Amino acid sequence: MISKTPIPPYYAVIFTNILNEEYQGYNEMSDIIEQLVINQDGYLGHESVRNGLGITVSYWESLAAIKAWKSNSDHQIAQKLGKKDWYKHFKVRICKVEHDYEFLTNEK
Amino acid sequence: MISKTPIPPYYAVIFTNILNEEYQGYNEMSDIIEQLVINQDGYLGHESVRNGLGITVSYWESLAAIKAWKSNSDHQIAQKLGKKDWYKHFKVRICKVEHDYEFLTNEK
Repeated sequence: MISKTPIPPYYAVIFTNILNEEYQGYNEMSDIIEQLVINQDGYLGHESVRNGLGITVSYWESLAAIKAWKSNSDHQIAQKLGKKDWYKHFKVRICKVEHDYEFLTNEK
Repeated sequence: MISKTPIPPYYAVIFTNILNEEYQGYNEMSDIIEQLVINQDGYLGHESVRNGLGITVSYWESLAAIKAWKSNSDHQIAQKLGKKDWYKHFKVRICKVEHDYEFLTNEK
């Protein structure tokens, strides 16, 4: 659920998106892409939620790893279909994670 | 929905969280905090979704603006209550947004 990421610095891709009214084939492609990304070099984890607005944050060792994933041929197909058929609006933000901290209750 | 942020660089706080089974008073405090944050110096926008996992990303002009918000006295009260009563687990990641790009259909 919440990714176990290493001590910073590392990188994050914040992908915020809104789907069209119809998005046939999107869920199937999401499952395929999720299986691909977790085996990608430099992948550290991801967190994803949708409730109208969708936010997916993926974590990476380096900018080079992010670039390699963006260029992955299957991912390229998904990106093209995303623009053609699925997304009404999206924004991608590439970030360097400089600090982090975590809270975990030990009783619940 | 998707924040209109300026040309990078700017900063992002990725707040990923899981609530306890009970979280009395949380929604009321969220509304108060949301009204406070949008008037904070250096605040640029935020995006928030919950569906089991919660992800809220807020955007800021500078690290100093993030620090000032973290120190805000009402926000400090919310942070204490959050640890005591509401959150089972959370992680905060402070990031520098280095690049971004956007897609918006013009037909839909």
